[in-house]
This record gives sequence, C-alpha cells and structure tokens, in this order.
Amino acid sequence: MHSVRNKRSPLLFSMFSFDILATENNARVGKLVTPHGAIHTPSFVPVGTLATVKALSAEDLCKLGSQVIISNAFHLHLRPGEDLIETIGGLHQFMSWEGPLMTDSGGFQVFSLGSGKEHGVGKIAPIFPEEKDRSIGPLNLKKEKPLVRVDEDGVEFISYIDGARHRFTPEKVIKIEQKLGADIILVLDECTSPLHGYDYTKEAMERTHRWAVRACVEFKRTYEKPQALFGIIQGGAYRDLREESARFISEQDFDGYAIGGSLGRSKHEMNKVLEWTVPLLPQDRPRHLLGIGEIDDIFEIVIRGIDLFDCVLPTRMARTGTVLNRGPDRFRMHIRNARFRGDSLPIQEGCTCYACRNYSRAYLRHLFMTNEPLGVRLATIHNVHFLEALMRQIRLAIREGSLWALRREWFAEI
Amino acid sequence: MHSVRNKRSPLLFSMFSFDILATENNARVGKLVTPHGAIHTPSFVPVGTLATVKALSAEDLCKLGSQVIISNAFHLHLRPGEDLIETIGGLHQFMSWEGPLMTDSGGFQVFSLGSGKEHGVGKIAPIFPEEKDRSIGPLNLKKEKPLVRVDEDGVEFISYIDGARHRFTPEKVIKIEQKLGADIILVLDECTSPLHGYDYTKEAMERTHRWAVRACVEFKRTYEKPQALFGIIQGGAYRDLREESARFISEQDFDGYAIGGSLGRSKHEMNKVLEWTVPLLPQDRPRHLLGIGEIDDIFEIVIRGIDLFDCVLPTRMARTGTVLNRGPDRFRMHIRNARFRGDSLPIQEGCTCYACRNYSRAYLRHLFMTNEPLGVRLATIHNVHFLEALMRQIRLAIREGSLWALRREWFAEI
Repeated sequence: MHSVRNKRSPLLFSMFSFDILATENNARVGKLVTPHGAIHTPSFVPVGTLATVKALSAEDLCKLGSQVIISNAFHLHLRPGEDLIETIGGLHQFMSWEGPLMTDSGGFQVFSLGSGKEHGVGKIAPIFPEEKDRSIGPLNLKKEKPLVRVDEDGVEFISYIDGARHRFTPEKVIKIEQKLGADIILVLDECTSPLHGYDYTKEAMERTHRWAVRACVEFKRTYEKPQALFGIIQGGAYRDLREESARFISEQDFDGYAIGGSLGRSKHEMNKVLEWTVPLLPQDRPRHLLGIGEIDDIFEIVIRGIDLFDCVLPTRMARTGTVLNRGPDRFRMHIRNARFRGDSLPIQEGCTCYACRNYSRAYLRHLFMTNEPLGVRLATIHNVHFLEALMRQIRLAIREGSLWALRREWFAEI
Repeated sequence: MHSVRNKRSPLLFSMFSFDILATENNARVGKLVTPHGAIHTPSFVPVGTLATVKALSAEDLCKLGSQVIISNAFHLHLRPGEDLIETIGGLHQFMSWEGPLMTDSGGFQVFSLGSGKEHGVGKIAPIFPEEKDRSIGPLNLKKEKPLVRVDEDGVEFISYIDGARHRFTPEKVIKIEQKLGADIILVLDECTSPLHGYDYTKEAMERTHRWAVRACVEFKRTYEKPQALFGIIQGGAYRDLREESARFISEQDFDGYAIGGSLGRSKHEMNKVLEWTVPLLPQDRPRHLLGIGEIDDIFEIVIRGIDLFDCVLPTRMARTGTVLNRGPDRFRMHIRNARFRGDSLPIQEGCTCYACRNYSRAYLRHLFMTNEPLGVRLATIHNVHFLEALMRQIRLAIREGSLWALRREWFAEI
C-alpha cells in the first residue's frame, strides 16, 4: 500500500499502511493503519448500514473492541444524503465514530435480490415496464419486473423510500464516498446471483472490471481526503472467471481487494472461490470478504488468507433473540425458548461482555417476551463481543501457530 | 421512619432513614436511606414497569445519576411472575440494579382506563358480561364492559396476555412485593378517574383505607426482608375526601406516603390536591406523587413539599422522537421535524449527556427517520439526563434558598 499512497500524495505516505506481522500457512495477522487508527487483522467489521450499527452507540462499539465499521454509500445516499453528512463534518463526525470506517459502494444493494431484501432492495417497486430482458435472473423468481437497469455507463434504480429515480455510475459512487469520507471506500461493482449462468456472470464481471478502471481514474483525479480505495473481485462460482477477475483487479491501482458475491450455493463453493482467488492477490495488501461471518465461516476464510470481513449476522440475529453461544446448535441459542424461563446463568458462562456480566438468560428472555428494547441491545452487545473475542483468539493463535488447534477446540464443543 | 423500623425489627433500625437537610418554604431537600443506598430528594424516579427502564441498561441509569427506579408489581406478576424473579434472586438481581428500588402495587393499572391504556390495560378484553354496574365510569366512554370487578376483598381482572383470571387482594399484593424485594413497596389502592363522581370516589377511598389497614397488618405479620411500606392517599379532586384520606393514611403505620390519582382535570386541580393533602402528612416521612413529571409540574410539586415522583413521560416521549429542550415549546422538541435535517447542534446546547456530547440533531433525526433503535436510546438518555440535571439544580436551589429564582429562570426562557 505504501507505494500506492506515494503516487497520490507524498504527504499522505504515512497515513495508510498494511504490515503482515505473522502468518500460519495462508492465515495472517496484520496491522492496517488508517488516518483514524489501526485495524488489527484478521478483523470482523460490524455493519452500520445507515451510519449506526443497529442498537449500539459508538461508545458501545469502542467498549466491545470493534476496530472498524462498514457503512453503506447506497443507503446513505438515499437517507440522509451524502451532502448532508458532509455538511455535518463527514461520516465519522456524523456517527461519532473516531475509529477507522469503510463504506461499501452499494453494488450489492442495487443488484442482489435474495440478500438484498434485508437491505430494503426487495421493497423497490417494479419499474421499467418496457424492460424485456430477464437475464437479471432471480428477480423473475418472484415474478417481479427488474428493479434496476444496468447499462455500460452504470445503473439506474428507484428509491424504495420515495420512488425517485437514481443513477449510480462508478464516478458518482466515488464522489458520494469522498463526501462521506470513510477511510476505506469500495468501487461500484455489479453483484451477480448464485442463480446467474456463466454468460451473464462473465458479462457482469467484465463490466465490473471496466467500472473498476473508471473508478480508479476518478478516484485519483479527485483525490483530496486521505482515503484508500478497494477494488472488488467478481466472477461468481466459476473458477476461470474468478481467476481472471483476481488478476485483472490486482493489476489496477487499488489499496486493497474485496471479494464480492456470488460465492456459490454452498460453503464448499465459497471456500473454493477463496482458494482460486486469494493466491492471485498481492500478498502485501488487505483482503476483505464481503458479507460473510458465521462462526464456522470465520475459521474457513481466515485459514484461506482473508484479513477483513463484514456481516450483519450478529446484529440481525440479536434482533430476533438469537444469541451466540458455544453450545451444540451451530453456536446459536434462541433466548425466547421456554427452557430459559428461569435460567439464572448468563448467555455464555465465562463471557465478559456487559450483558453476561450483569444479566441472566431469564432476564434476557423476559425482555424479549415483553418486547423491551433493552433486550435487542443486550443481545447485540453479546453477539458482537462474542465475535470480537473470537477474533482476538484467532489473531493470537496465528501468532502462536495454533490456529488449527483453536479450530479443533471450537468445533469439538459442538 | 426510625421509630417505625424499630417496631418491626431492632436489627433493621439503621437500614432506612429519612432526614430533611434543608427547606425553603414547603420545599425540602432530604436524604432517604434504603438498604440499597441513599436517595437525595426531591428526586425523579424513572419508571421501569417491566423491570427495565425502556431502552436503558442499569449502567446507563447509573451514569445518568438516577437514584431509584420504580417497577410495577401488577405487570411483573403477569410477566414473568414474582416467583421467577424471586428464584433469580429478587428484582435487584434480576434487573441488575444495585440502587434503591420501589414497586407500585398495580392499583393504577387495574383501575385506570385513560392512563391505563399506556400500561396495556386498555388491551384487556371485556369480561364479566353479567356485570351491570356502570359506576366504574369512564370505561363506558369506550362502550366497553368493565374490565375488573372490585369487591370488599379485592379486585378480579383478566390478564391482557393470556386471558387468565387473576385476583389481587391487599395481602396478595404485599406477598408479591415481598417476593420481588424492592426497598420501598406500595399498598394496593383503588385508583379512581377524574370522571368519577363524589359518591363513587368516596366509596373507593374508604375501601382503599380498609385495604391499607389490611396491607399494613399483613406486611408486619410477614416482614422478613428490609422493606419500607408506603400508604397511598386517594380522594380524587374533592377537598374533604383528600383531607380525610391524608389524615387516615397518616395514622397508619406507614414509612412514607404516596399521593395517587385522580388528581383532577387540570394542573390547577393537581396543585390544589397537594395543598390540601401535604400539610396533613407527617413532616418527617417521604412523600411520593404518583405518575407526574412534566417540567412545569416538577416545580409546582416540589414547591408544595413532594419528595419523590415517578413519570413515564421522559421515556415515552423519547420513543416518538420528542426530546426535552429549554426551547419555547413547553420544553419539547420534535426531532423528526424537517427543520432539524441538517442541524449540527446537539439536542440542547451545553447539555453534558452522552447524546449531546456526541451527536447532532441531524444524526438523531436521521436515526428516527430510519427507525434505527439507537435513536430511541439516545433520546431516552437525553430526556432522563435532562430531568436528573434539573433535579440536581432544584436540590441545590432549595439548599441555597433560591428555588423561586430557579423557577423564574426556567420559565423566563419559554
């Protein structure tokens, strides 16, 4: 990364760096320095889509040991708008987060249907009635007309909030992300679905590559605030496409690399995508896997050389009363279950999070059964703490060469 | 209070005390000591109906300077049940609140319709189809059949949760509150409505008096944990009834006195009720006004000699985005208002609460407009801080003989 910064502005040379401090096979411990502080990798990146990690304050996240938050340019463009955030002093100031920040470009939000629903894209009313091309695929599963129109220049979509038409281009997304001012920003990509065929996936990947080049040019042309730009690798679950994408994106002038979906239809396919892609990426730059973060995924992706990953799972699970626990049910515990009614234990024995130090499962269940807002907050605190504590264990294990032993320990219990 | 404790158990002599440290006319600064710490009065008592002050953790409340919380025996009896809470170690342990705790008896919840709606009582399905007595009054305004049946022994009602029938008697409520284990507990009363006539208000008051005697007897008979028992004065907005009730309840062996609704149909009537009642109460015991707490009320009730008051207003207002502010609109600011869209000021300039130290009105508005849960928490933190800070100012002013000046200062601004 040093050399890249150097090209842009010698003054900013020291504001970003990435150093690998220890490795165990492909897994690595690194230190990614940004103008807002360092991120010790591998690191979980809590998702703060709308400039807030759901149910947590900036202070909560500090206490939980979260090092970096990823917010979303697409959502913030729609509400409250990047101009407003810039007026308030940028995204850090707006959300009162003094640490490193990332923004995703919104490629996923614009294109995904399945997972996009969670992000509100599923709420976009059908437009473009004249649109005949069904190649956008999975949208048809719901018998809905395409919600977005992709062309060489960019993508047009309507807001799920007020029905207004919006157009995103690679250049416009750079502009939005510059106004937001996160430390690490991602280029606009076209995210395909696992249900897309080879031809469409290839076509979308090639378009994503052309967009990446344009984003890079625009970023350098308008570079003012110290920001790092990450490229996104696409190509679905097709080996030749992933390899082509990894090579192409690596050749561009990016500070780091994100691996985007689709990651196939199974965890096995996801692992394969990483095995094809990661070895082709420059060793000395950070690698981010977008939108992955179940407990068993985490070991698999770290072992395959991923440095950063974001996932809404711990916060989303918390909202329905599902808490992470080293129990037998894939690390999940449904706190609303009647068996916790009089359970005086904490969510996880030995856990040092605020929820576990102070409250019983019985109390947490009571909060969920009565829809008390403190319930979601305590569950979120626990889930994020649980992941951050796991990441600290993983970083230590890599330094000590015991990552496989740690994995065995975690999975022996389930 | 000392002498009362002494009668029950000499060992517990020192666990409760109430000392008046300063007065200014009828207003007074006191120190109410409980087994879980001291309450400096006059004090706001945040409402934690279901063993949680909505959207706040125990840690939040500590930081906000809240000294005592009032929870509700009626609601906790229905969910999760006093036996469960006793199993977990009592209400303090259950909700992880180490400071003083009160429990209201549920008289208000069982009887009130208007305000009772907020507490969920309005959701009780009509029962007792054979019931012909419409004297319960305001229930008929909604053309609903009476929801409760009051008799000399107590009150029967159905749960709004599962439709199960429940019976509360003065003795049973004492038992529930003993199991919950709050420091200060309230007797069962029959709360009348401002729309009740003289005859029914008198009848209900006299029943409340007989229940108070029974509660007192039961409390002494079963006294184990160190708890203080407060009587409740009723009598609606009728001077002779309020005076009779104040005299009668004062003659019983209570550690303190609560003044219950109805407090009339206007703030003027509420003030009159206090002027009739408070002078008849023993000077050396604490006085609690139930369910009052607008900013302008607070000065009026403190001036009339009230030591404690609870109110859901600051927490309930916060849930709809209404925040307290020393502005022109009766101390209220509706943060969803479009004029706050790009407002980089904190809710209240100079406020030292966590929300104001870290976030702009623009951010808070954004959180409310996007239904982000952090919005309600920040608004609640601010509102509770605002009241606690006002109470600190009021206590200091009374000590310095400047309460009227403080009131002028607060009301000159609006």
